[in-house]
Amino acid sequence: MSNLGEIEAIKRLKYRYLRCLDQKRWDELADCFTVDARVSYGDGQYSFAGRERIMEFLRDALSATTKLTSHRCHQPEIDVIGPTAATATWALDDVVIDTEAQITLRGAAFYEDQYVKEGGQWKISFTGYKRLYEEVESRQDTASLKLTAAWWPIQSA
Amino acid sequence: MSNLGEIEAIKRLKYRYLRCLDQKRWDELADCFTVDARVSYGDGQYSFAGRERIMEFLRDALSATTKLTSHRCHQPEIDVIGPTAATATWALDDVVIDTEAQITLRGAAFYEDQYVKEGGQWKISFTGYKRLYEEVESRQDTASLKLTAAWWPIQSA
Amino acid sequence: MSNLGEIEAIKRLKYRYLRCLDQKRWDELADCFTVDARVSYGDGQYSFAGRERIMEFLRDALSATTKLTSHRCHQPEIDVIGPTAATATWALDDVVIDTEAQITLRGAAFYEDQYVKEGGQWKISFTGYKRLYEEVESRQDTASLKLTAAWWPIQSA
Repeated sequence: MSNLGEIEAIKRLKYRYLRCLDQKRWDELADCFTVDARVSYGDGQYSFAGRERIMEFLRDALSATTKLTSHRCHQPEIDVIGPTAATATWALDDVVIDTEAQITLRGAAFYEDQYVKEGGQWKISFTGYKRLYEEVESRQDTASLKLTAAWWPIQSA
Repeated sequence: MSNLGEIEAIKRLKYRYLRCLDQKRWDELADCFTVDARVSYGDGQYSFAGRERIMEFLRDALSATTKLTSHRCHQPEIDVIGPTAATATWALDDVVIDTEAQITLRGAAFYEDQYVKEGGQWKISFTGYKRLYEEVESRQDTASLKLTAAWWPIQSA
Repeated sequence: MSNLGEIEAIKRLKYRYLRCLDQKRWDELADCFTVDARVSYGDGQYSFAGRERIMEFLRDALSATTKLTSHRCHQPEIDVIGPTAATATWALDDVVIDTEAQITLRGAAFYEDQYVKEGGQWKISFTGYKRLYEEVESRQDTASLKLTAAWWPIQSA
């Protein structure tokens, strides 16, 4: 595959990872990681090694359908550094609406990722981000704020 | 054209569609659809068949320059499934500022699109999205909120 | 390099420019411009000619680490118009959190860029945007709003 082909394949991997995260498709998401993958979310606050441990964390943290999440990655700077190795920087914008705790989190960050090609498939071997900013507010501060649609049935609003 | 070339051409189509939507360039936007295109906006709430009917809906809904819209699509997962057929998933972030009704809508969704190549040009034959979330608030809740710039002259703020 | 290779190289240039802007990496950012580059930010309100003058403006405006900025560009429509010349349209979303003035600015715009290839490297020769909207609000309007993370140490919140 050409260098541009590898870059497109790595973008696809990242986009599938992000979509499965927000759609809570845990089994498909697990398939995005190598078995020995490492993650460092939230400026290293949430660091885990091993696909099983990472998936346990993500399922625990985000399975509740009262947590509506939007993780958007932009501006990929991908370097293919060998036939089965690549690195990338990405810009992240994320929103978490927690209809139970009645809070909204909004943040921006830069990711530093590492990828490995295994059996013809690119996988995430390391992913971690450092925040540009993150802020949290109560959804009860804004008198008129109304959740008008959600992926899952709205349980409280 | 190579597979990567087709993918780039489909991205361009989607980006032109989104730009024309927010710039209210209706004639250029119409050109993005096949004659028999179908759309399903807002979780199917706004479903139309035929380019003319779709354009009538969009012009009616969004021609007012008191509606400032931002539709951003991200994270394309595009599959070219034949020489003249392709499908894609996209992540959407949208903002609508209505300076007349004095509301702001913010939402996130995933699109499922279908494309057809006609006379060498990719066109949208189906586009529809399902919301991750959508929320609306009154712009009058925030005492200090001020619109400081707009594409068209600001008519009320 | 193929046309698709040039397009990927121009995307990389823009993404490096945006990352260096938000990470306040001024020397690397300067390297993104031609010596005679011109910019037109904020609907032409901030127009400058010459890399040195542009960098002086950016350093003055954005060096303070009390200004947390997020500039995200999307939806590139890039035309390579000659072996060393290209143009592009981009969609911009930007957020500026000013922890000293206690304001948040949120905006959206469309960029019109020009690029030149010098010694094998693409550079920005012109960049300018027109706002879809821009709005500013006081961070003190929202009783619960809390900055919970930042790239630099939080100085006031």
